[in-house]
Amino acid sequence: MNDHPPQPAIILVRPQLGENIGTVARAMLNFGLTDLRLVNPRDGWPNPDAGPAAAGADLVLAQTQVFATLAEAAHDCGQLLATTVRRRDIVKPVLDPAEAASQVRASTVRTAYIFGAERSGLDTDDVAMAHAIVTVPINPEFPSLNLAQAVILMAYEWSKGSTLASPAIKPIDAPAPQQDVDALVQAFDAALEPAGYFHPPHRNAVTRRSLRMLLTKPGWSAKEISMMRGVLTALLNPRQR
Amino acid sequence: MNDHPPQPAIILVRPQLGENIGTVARAMLNFGLTDLRLVNPRDGWPNPDAGPAAAGADLVLAQTQVFATLAEAAHDCGQLLATTVRRRDIVKPVLDPAEAASQVRASTVRTAYIFGAERSGLDTDDVAMAHAIVTVPINPEFPSLNLAQAVILMAYEWSKGSTLASPAIKPIDAPAPQQDVDALVQAFDAALEPAGYFHPPHRNAVTRRSLRMLLTKPGWSAKEISMMRGVLTALLNPRQR
Repeated sequence: MNDHPPQPAIILVRPQLGENIGTVARAMLNFGLTDLRLVNPRDGWPNPDAGPAAAGADLVLAQTQVFATLAEAAHDCGQLLATTVRRRDIVKPVLDPAEAASQVRASTVRTAYIFGAERSGLDTDDVAMAHAIVTVPINPEFPSLNLAQAVILMAYEWSKGSTLASPAIKPIDAPAPQQDVDALVQAFDAALEPAGYFHPPHRNAVTRRSLRMLLTKPGWSAKEISMMRGVLTALLNPRQR
Repeated sequence: MNDHPPQPAIILVRPQLGENIGTVARAMLNFGLTDLRLVNPRDGWPNPDAGPAAAGADLVLAQTQVFATLAEAAHDCGQLLATTVRRRDIVKPVLDPAEAASQVRASTVRTAYIFGAERSGLDTDDVAMAHAIVTVPINPEFPSLNLAQAVILMAYEWSKGSTLASPAIKPIDAPAPQQDVDALVQAFDAALEPAGYFHPPHRNAVTRRSLRMLLTKPGWSAKEISMMRGVLTALLNPRQR
């Protein structure tokens, strides 16, 4: 079993209705997924509306975890997939649900499928953290996809291959967990702030997002991230020789 | 267009809740299906609960037809597919949703996807009328699939091969030419050498190669490489503020 990638996590960012959290849990369990994580749910957690809507998927709700930020929710995930309906200006690889599922199964690290709030979807900063975007090829004239529907399509595609005994190919350098990427981004951020890199202030948010995307794109392994941090440390603290 | 089979019909047999009829309409329109037919809906038709649940898929509800029997509802369909979760004793070909979709697209006659009531599913007489059974390969320990979820999986698989205009995939930024990568590597090298990073000398070649691999792996675009060089410059020449 160690040859198989861990089951993907489903992360809902700022979900609004407890009922939708329940129907998501049900959709997940329909295809054998149980790892549900909430980022800052609007009405708190637990939510009395979730249980009835889960229609028996109580075990998913019982182990649902709540986090303050997406970075924390994805701390142990090495592959972050942002699900969107709309096109984005952000330049990231774009997958359909079947391609995403292949990529999840081919990976040895845990994947997070990330879903935005019911009305607004994921914001640009959330998408910036992801390694790729998963887009459901939906009717462009009616792109209003219910949250649980979006989840079930991902879960369904994932489950298609999950019972196949695929030969495990162990990559030498699996992508590092999100917490390592995050720490690297923060280390660069902390070094660049006093250097005046984020000037002028009104460009701050955009520049920070670009920096995050730049450092997320490589999919560096834990070892590679560690090397990059060594490079940064050397630049900041030159030794005299 | 005559080369294509007519769009499949979705037939709900004895549906109970108006809300579910609405969410089915929404799921259909998400993937471009508009032909909804009801057999003997429990609460009659139209149903005031359907509209709000359809979340804008009003055109599907407006043209929904009601029939007294499944035979009448499927009168113009040449291929009847009974969707079930449980296996049946009836001897029929059994397809998964992807196989069913292939068969629908390969056919020149109209297909009906037939769905049973929320709790009870299709009864044996309904299934007997079908040419084949479509079974969603669901978690056997939690086979309670919501009606709209069952519909969306069929519609999704069908739409994969249809002519729906799927969002065009934006190519990711092309990797920079090698000379840009090379210049980046050299810039890091030049900054790290005086910082003592390549100490001790006998590790020099290996460390340099690792650094090159680290900076080559991302496949950064020319713009991204330019940003990385800006980061390096800022670290080396902090501005006072």
